[in-house]
Amino acid sequence: MTLNVYLSGEIHSDWREQIIEGAKDLDVSFHSPVTDHDSSDDCGVAILGQEDNKYWHDHKGAMVNAIRTRKGLADADVVVVRFGEKYKQWNAAFDAGYAAALGKSIIVLNPPAHQHALKEVHAAALAVAEEPSQVVEILRYVLTGSLPG
Amino acid sequence: MTLNVYLSGEIHSDWREQIIEGAKDLDVSFHSPVTDHDSSDDCGVAILGQEDNKYWHDHKGAMVNAIRTRKGLADADVVVVRFGEKYKQWNAAFDAGYAAALGKSIIVLNPPAHQHALKEVHAAALAVAEEPSQVVEILRYVLTGSLPG
Amino acid sequence: MTLNVYLSGEIHSDWREQIIEGAKDLDVSFHSPVTDHDSSDDCGVAILGQEDNKYWHDHKGAMVNAIRTRKGLADADVVVVRFGEKYKQWNAAFDAGYAAALGKSIIVLNPPAHQHALKEVHAAALAVAEEPSQVVEILRYVLTGSLPG
Amino acid sequence: MTLNVYLSGEIHSDWREQIIEGAKDLDVSFHSPVTDHDSSDDCGVAILGQEDNKYWHDHKGAMVNAIRTRKGLADADVVVVRFGEKYKQWNAAFDAGYAAALGKSIIVLNPPAHQHALKEVHAAALAVAEEPSQVVEILRYVLTGSLPG
Amino acid sequence: MTLNVYLSGEIHSDWREQIIEGAKDLDVSFHSPVTDHDSSDDCGVAILGQEDNKYWHDHKGAMVNAIRTRKGLADADVVVVRFGEKYKQWNAAFDAGYAAALGKSIIVLNPPAHQHALKEVHAAALAVAEEPSQVVEILRYVLTGSLPG
Amino acid sequence: MTLNVYLSGEIHSDWREQIIEGAKDLDVSFHSPVTDHDSSDDCGVAILGQEDNKYWHDHKGAMVNAIRTRKGLADADVVVVRFGEKYKQWNAAFDAGYAAALGKSIIVLNPPAHQHALKEVHAAALAVAEEPSQVVEILRYVLTGSLPG
Amino acid sequence: MTLNVYLSGEIHSDWREQIIEGAKDLDVSFHSPVTDHDSSDDCGVAILGQEDNKYWHDHKGAMVNAIRTRKGLADADVVVVRFGEKYKQWNAAFDAGYAAALGKSIIVLNPPAHQHALKEVHAAALAVAEEPSQVVEILRYVLTGSLPG
Amino acid sequence: MTLNVYLSGEIHSDWREQIIEGAKDLDVSFHSPVTDHDSSDDCGVAILGQEDNKYWHDHKGAMVNAIRTRKGLADADVVVVRFGEKYKQWNAAFDAGYAAALGKSIIVLNPPAHQHALKEVHAAALAVAEEPSQVVEILRYVLTGSLPG
Repeated sequence: MTLNVYLSGEIHSDWREQIIEGAKDLDVSFHSPVTDHDSSDDCGVAILGQEDNKYWHDHKGAMVNAIRTRKGLADADVVVVRFGEKYKQWNAAFDAGYAAALGKSIIVLNPPAHQHALKEVHAAALAVAEEPSQVVEILRYVLTGSLPG
Repeated sequence: MTLNVYLSGEIHSDWREQIIEGAKDLDVSFHSPVTDHDSSDDCGVAILGQEDNKYWHDHKGAMVNAIRTRKGLADADVVVVRFGEKYKQWNAAFDAGYAAALGKSIIVLNPPAHQHALKEVHAAALAVAEEPSQVVEILRYVLTGSLPG
Repeated sequence: MTLNVYLSGEIHSDWREQIIEGAKDLDVSFHSPVTDHDSSDDCGVAILGQEDNKYWHDHKGAMVNAIRTRKGLADADVVVVRFGEKYKQWNAAFDAGYAAALGKSIIVLNPPAHQHALKEVHAAALAVAEEPSQVVEILRYVLTGSLPG
Repeated sequence: MTLNVYLSGEIHSDWREQIIEGAKDLDVSFHSPVTDHDSSDDCGVAILGQEDNKYWHDHKGAMVNAIRTRKGLADADVVVVRFGEKYKQWNAAFDAGYAAALGKSIIVLNPPAHQHALKEVHAAALAVAEEPSQVVEILRYVLTGSLPG
Repeated sequence: MTLNVYLSGEIHSDWREQIIEGAKDLDVSFHSPVTDHDSSDDCGVAILGQEDNKYWHDHKGAMVNAIRTRKGLADADVVVVRFGEKYKQWNAAFDAGYAAALGKSIIVLNPPAHQHALKEVHAAALAVAEEPSQVVEILRYVLTGSLPG
Repeated sequence: MTLNVYLSGEIHSDWREQIIEGAKDLDVSFHSPVTDHDSSDDCGVAILGQEDNKYWHDHKGAMVNAIRTRKGLADADVVVVRFGEKYKQWNAAFDAGYAAALGKSIIVLNPPAHQHALKEVHAAALAVAEEPSQVVEILRYVLTGSLPG
Repeated sequence: MTLNVYLSGEIHSDWREQIIEGAKDLDVSFHSPVTDHDSSDDCGVAILGQEDNKYWHDHKGAMVNAIRTRKGLADADVVVVRFGEKYKQWNAAFDAGYAAALGKSIIVLNPPAHQHALKEVHAAALAVAEEPSQVVEILRYVLTGSLPG
Repeated sequence: MTLNVYLSGEIHSDWREQIIEGAKDLDVSFHSPVTDHDSSDDCGVAILGQEDNKYWHDHKGAMVNAIRTRKGLADADVVVVRFGEKYKQWNAAFDAGYAAALGKSIIVLNPPAHQHALKEVHAAALAVAEEPSQVVEILRYVLTGSLPG
């Protein structure tokens, strides 16, 4: 059994690398959005032409990024949604809602301080973790039945 | 043609009342989450029993609220998602993602300051408005073909 | 908002009547399986002809009952699944699984003693209640926002 | 033609091993839940943190196990559901209902004594067997057209 | 509970009238194909223009009739498929397969002589009847719980 | 049986009025896009604010119109797609493709000169007509079984 | 591009072998029902135990065969349905209806004499052929763009 | 991550070759309709027999081509729809609508002169390009995160 796992959300820390490294002996195929912040913001205008208006600048980029995001979410067995300490991160919550409506298994990864604000997102999740290592342990258990310790 | 419209998101201002009042001559059926903040937070434990742990207190409430939210989203033709000035509002973005995956027509209503942070949500919307009156004008146009002014 | 509620499971106590009576002022449309035990067991052979073999006697009846059950589950917004004190009640758990795969909102109603054995069913539910009155309170809250007390 | 077969239900006897051994020359890919009883019960708290309350202890584990179960059921062509002599086994009946709503081909494997209690589950099955060897014979016939004897 | 019932198949006897008359006190909405044989054969060319080639004459008619058939099947809760004594009746078997793939509850009505030839169709049905009165009894039981006699 | 019919395509002749008038004694509910050309082009900027760039001017309008179009197509049993003599009419062909993927019954209404260019669209249709009166005759036949003349 | 092709229907002539031989240089994966008549009739009782009643004998077999048929139809891109000269062949028409509801591309293969009786099945097909060699030519064209001659 | 890309539309210029050549180092699987104009027009009658009537000549061909088109669209992650300078190109707009209803990511490729006429098609797209090289750049970015320049 190969698991397709999509790693959605925060792009300012190395949580993806921690999970991918921790799971390197497991039969997992990981996918992610483009995590280079500038590329992600500017991809639309860089390819399809400049916009004077910031709204359309952003819109073109968000639409191009959606090609990758939708593919990643549609193919996933498990969607891990990471909320970091800062920023609005509405894209992460949007991905969680999208994944929920598709019936995907959702793991939310967030610091404890966000617990109350994320309660509706948690209600759609099968697991809520605080550390990337816990996500790895879940993937290991799901694939092999092995528990930590 | 009756339109089913679900009004998702911010519960601290009277934007829902403005839209419902403005559209009172139109063939629209509006639905919303429970907008009483305390009831929404406490419904789970009030009905199903207290919890010592704040996480499970919140969880029980979010699950009960999901019965209403899912029904409202599933039945909707149009989902209006309102982002206010404050708070994380991840439930609003979650609803937007959920509605997008179901193929619902989405109208986002937000102050201009949130434009960049909402770009992925906007990319899934058919309209982005700043004022409740614009939402009314869209509903009026969709149902009757009449434009303002 | 009218809620379609299917009342699945145990047929040996008056829990359905308690819920229907308690919710009589609410905009709910209730549906149930045939709850007469003998009719439910014998409907197949009574209409379609006797069987010598007990397996086919039961099979014919279960198939005819499935016409009603499938309709009830397919039309439901909320499925309440009741587990009583006795018997195997595999039909109740089957209905819960069926409803879960259809994405229905599930409320499980069971005595505390069954908690561990029902944990997989509970994991698919939005609420777990012990008393019919709690189901009524959930329906009232979902439809009106009112909480008990 | 490769068949994906999910082996759901009882974890206290070697029925899975008998089927896998018997079908080892066939083009079948078998999947199962985690069948170590203690790991299955404790996986949630072992990875995501202890709970004082037994309900939430169980809930966390059932949710983590659901990641594997959902994947197994979603990918399956055939779902074999085994009911043993003992216990409530509501998870088996739940899986059967879930598989039925997804339109999967279901084979039920149970001792004759459970016949009446399983009639609604049998009504959703394409085959009802008493011995693991019969399941192997069905898989062999479906894949190769060969019958026993 | 209103049942939508589509009456598919043989158009040379009064079985539809018998069922509709027998069920006139029940909350059932019946739909059928056009049962006038000549109209059904010629509707395409009568409206859309003559064809020299018999194949296209038939094709145009079958396509126009499909507008009604698809609507009837899509809206149905229960599909009754009647096979008479004579003719190929491939349209009846086609409707049964179409209904099966949509997950509709199927009742097959046929003379005993056709039993072996219909075994694959029967395998997708929830009831197999020989007389229209049995179909009425099933509808009565499904809607009211009452059995004959 | 009420038929929901969506009238898509050309807005420069009175074909919709002819069909609606001709079918006024039938149980049909008709829906259409906004057929005022200027309103349809300008609705986006009239409600949501001016755009300097013609592309975004058009885009905003097309998105708002999509709210009505999607609702009309999603609710339809039958989609009539009219191609007139002039213009590109890609929106009509787009609606036909959209309707085809949803499994809707499609009637194409076009002048004979367009036959070759529309062959892929015709291949997805259940009827191809040249006159609005033929569409009325199809609706009459589908609903009542009556043929012209 | 690999095409999955399911070959449904008549089992008394070598039409399947002709198609498979003719397409042996193409990227096609063929699947079929079990075509040994006796095995197909008796598989249920041979594996799951004898039945006194011919109906249940047939039923058990049809159900076991359905495991293979459903898999073949669900995985298919193209379903070829063959009607021979003789017999009722309702299983072939049933498969055609099932495939149509799943949106599969259908090719019907039948002698000209059956044209009128098959008109509803033809109305759901993308091609109607009289010879196995024509089916091969269609598969070749679809995969390579090459036409005969 | 492999992307399945279907290249729909205009067959009179080498835009497909430009995209395939430009993307030859990327993990993309391209599919297209048959682009030989005569073969595409005549495939139906060449294989299935001549027709006197031009409408049925075209119809037979369009139906056979639909086998390939539907497979290509159903399997695609991304659908590129090219509109050239000339012709009606209703098949391209039809494919765009079909892809939109399936929820595919759509890239439209057209000369600027068609902008207004394509506004409803653009409203369903995630990117609108003028040059094949821009499509390549989008595919490169989606797969690797690399931007041009």
